[in-house]
Amino acid sequence: MGTTDKPADPETATKVVPPPSKEESEATPPPPKPDYLFLADVALRFLVFAASLTSVLVMVTSKQTVFRGRFPVKAKFNHSPAFIYFVAALSVAGLYALLTTLASISVIWKPICPPKLLLHFAFLDVLILGLVASATGTAGGVAYIGYKGNEHVMWQKVCSAFDKYCKHIAGSLATSLFASVLLVLLVWLSTFTLHKKIRQD
Amino acid sequence: MGTTDKPADPETATKVVPPPSKEESEATPPPPKPDYLFLADVALRFLVFAASLTSVLVMVTSKQTVFRGRFPVKAKFNHSPAFIYFVAALSVAGLYALLTTLASISVIWKPICPPKLLLHFAFLDVLILGLVASATGTAGGVAYIGYKGNEHVMWQKVCSAFDKYCKHIAGSLATSLFASVLLVLLVWLSTFTLHKKIRQD
Repeated sequence: MGTTDKPADPETATKVVPPPSKEESEATPPPPKPDYLFLADVALRFLVFAASLTSVLVMVTSKQTVFRGRFPVKAKFNHSPAFIYFVAALSVAGLYALLTTLASISVIWKPICPPKLLLHFAFLDVLILGLVASATGTAGGVAYIGYKGNEHVMWQKVCSAFDKYCKHIAGSLATSLFASVLLVLLVWLSTFTLHKKIRQD
Repeated sequence: MGTTDKPADPETATKVVPPPSKEESEATPPPPKPDYLFLADVALRFLVFAASLTSVLVMVTSKQTVFRGRFPVKAKFNHSPAFIYFVAALSVAGLYALLTTLASISVIWKPICPPKLLLHFAFLDVLILGLVASATGTAGGVAYIGYKGNEHVMWQKVCSAFDKYCKHIAGSLATSLFASVLLVLLVWLSTFTLHKKIRQD
């Protein structure tokens, strides 16, 4: 590194350049630096998309058939309205994350990130966070009853028989919890970037 | 009001004041206007506190005893872990809303709202929103099973017998859903105020 650098021309190095006038320095903006906060934004959005997609796929493929005597008993995710809501909410979140990832990438080449875009992103991110958090809670509450049962109301355990089914649901829930945390970080990042812009101005 | 005010001295009223130089007008800030956005912030925070408190109280008082033959059967909120989580989460949200209402009121008399406070509020509001949304989802998912039952896993309805108990839980859930919506509005307000400050600068 640096071995191929030419030595500085002594004439140009010693030549004193007059400092630019105040008007000139205001007119020419500094060269655009890569905005690391915005790169983090794109990365987080893509991770939310990946987590949502994984969560939906793992939930949808959670099928198991168990034989009780001669009779087959099936367990599918759409036997519970909570899991259907979960799949719908995470699908919306995944689609939203994909679209905003593309929108972020299209903006990343511009030298200055428009604050209005950050505002819109923060507004929508909060809504999607509420959606994903509530869906994770809903599915988690029902899955907990399936895992532990509830003696007070005589709701039996399900996971003792349907072990593979429950593992799928647990994996799906863990991934959507991860997506919720990422969405919190995304809103924090948008808000922090807006705050940083105030301090720069 | 205003009857004790002295009439303005005609000499000083008609006296032409020379316009202040540019440096002077920059040094003296304009007189502070009441910040309506910040008043809305305080009002929303107080509403979140009221909604959380109501939600917790209605959930905690949801007791009902039904006789099946000679045997009394009790229903209480703490028979379900989902409702215990709900009460804990909404209590935290209520306490947080109370503290931030007081913090907002203490800042409202200052002419300029510090952006750093808005940033911290927005950061914490997002966390509390995630908490309240997930708690509402969890309790809602379990309450839905209590209301409709689930034939696939032989979980019976509860609300057909415990009508008063279920009405309490439904009321509590509606109030916490309202608190979630208020928290979304709060985050939007903080973000919007930050964005407005950028445009003002």
